[in-house]
Amino acid sequence: MLSHSKRASIVVLGLGLNVLFLTVSMGQEKVTRYLRFRAGKTVAYGILDGDVVHQLKGNLFGKWERTEKTHPLKDVRILVPSPRPSKVIALAGNYKDHLGDKEPPMTPEPFFKLPSCLLRHGGKIIQPKDHAPVHYEAELVVVIGKRARNVAPEQALDFVLGITCGNDISARDWQKNDVQWWRAKGSDTFGPVGPYIVSGLDYNNLDMELRVNGEVRQKTNTKNQIHDLATTISFISKRITLRPGDLIFTGTPGKTQGMEIGDSVEVEIQGVGILKNKLIAEK
Amino acid sequence: MLSHSKRASIVVLGLGLNVLFLTVSMGQEKVTRYLRFRAGKTVAYGILDGDVVHQLKGNLFGKWERTEKTHPLKDVRILVPSPRPSKVIALAGNYKDHLGDKEPPMTPEPFFKLPSCLLRHGGKIIQPKDHAPVHYEAELVVVIGKRARNVAPEQALDFVLGITCGNDISARDWQKNDVQWWRAKGSDTFGPVGPYIVSGLDYNNLDMELRVNGEVRQKTNTKNQIHDLATTISFISKRITLRPGDLIFTGTPGKTQGMEIGDSVEVEIQGVGILKNKLIAEK
Repeated sequence: MLSHSKRASIVVLGLGLNVLFLTVSMGQEKVTRYLRFRAGKTVAYGILDGDVVHQLKGNLFGKWERTEKTHPLKDVRILVPSPRPSKVIALAGNYKDHLGDKEPPMTPEPFFKLPSCLLRHGGKIIQPKDHAPVHYEAELVVVIGKRARNVAPEQALDFVLGITCGNDISARDWQKNDVQWWRAKGSDTFGPVGPYIVSGLDYNNLDMELRVNGEVRQKTNTKNQIHDLATTISFISKRITLRPGDLIFTGTPGKTQGMEIGDSVEVEIQGVGILKNKLIAEK
Repeated sequence: MLSHSKRASIVVLGLGLNVLFLTVSMGQEKVTRYLRFRAGKTVAYGILDGDVVHQLKGNLFGKWERTEKTHPLKDVRILVPSPRPSKVIALAGNYKDHLGDKEPPMTPEPFFKLPSCLLRHGGKIIQPKDHAPVHYEAELVVVIGKRARNVAPEQALDFVLGITCGNDISARDWQKNDVQWWRAKGSDTFGPVGPYIVSGLDYNNLDMELRVNGEVRQKTNTKNQIHDLATTISFISKRITLRPGDLIFTGTPGKTQGMEIGDSVEVEIQGVGILKNKLIAEK
């Protein structure tokens, strides 16, 4: 993706001919915060403007329009932003400082989480009773906006609706001992995402931080990804058709640790917001 | 699951009190063949009776009823029986003769395929141009009929709508060299399933066979599974909520081989039908 300054330069060079391009370009750059929420009995998508939620009519991943209805942000319950994706993909080892002595992978290394593991901002992560403390993993999550199949890296970001914060909860013993990572990464509640889907940012240059009970445990900038978003989306789409609403967790930085029951864990991405969840014991 | 004879004995023992039970029980045992099909511009579910498709109204995984409309089977195009499952799970190493010298796993060993890899009966499997010949894997596929979370093995089969034939197409080099099996098992077209969802059979005692160009390559009976259907469903549901329409591929027997472009591959399960697909080259 072009940075703000690079895109501005192109516009200036072509100014005589491209007034329309200027408008379109600036429109794309505008930061928009989408959310899915419940207010009373209503479940809807909305656009957040300051502390006001402008309710939308329709499906954010299909056709929608603004309505006149608004809600104070404090009065709504924020829900999983993409409630029924057709798939949830994630990346292994996409930050050098997460890999230790291992060689960085030549290509992105995807694996699958599940729609059923997604958890809303404010929802409770469940610590399985038959496993050691689960680990947090702060991640930037891509939200696909358009069907993508075999797209070039140069076009890949056109298929992105926006990004959100994700926490790729990981049960390390299962990850190590099972043949594949199904329950290590795909157990119910192991996929907190939210609170907003944000478009118009430079996704490849955002600070990201994870805090447990307010203490910083992970800190990076998304420019430290080994494979950037466009490379990742293009690579996956060579083999797998991506659909609107699909999510891609793009890897975690540094070292992670187990959490204790009652811990509050926050993932913050610059310009996106804070995803906050609490760990509770399985009954 | 109780066999026909066992269930009949129970009914006889309780005959004085349980005329209703007799009716219900025999109803459950009746073999029913569901399909999803296209006829002209209509896409619908149906029930197959001989060579006649009785069209249904509604969603097989929600509310539905029979209509008066029928079609000759030869005039319809059979589609993927569960077109948009929320997940597609599969099992690694669930027949002893597939494991070679390896110890049988103590528990089922799931991994994830994707809804986007599903392919209809008659559809073309695509051989990736950057990979050695892909392998076939004949499998019995469970179709979930009701939401299941933490169900006991004794109740697990109550959550099954029926079974169908599946071919867990596998790209062995990717399976060996990638961190996880995402494209090895999840590439588009790597999940042929169908043609029918069949209920009322004894799922744990069915002959299964795979043929390439008419030549038998895999042959087993589902009683040779290391973990039977009820154990598998119960085990997965401890961690992952299963939803109506979800599919579980339950493992493949024996040794598999690569296929050649143009090969016709058939999976046949006793009482279910024949799933037939052809391998074509990627453009």
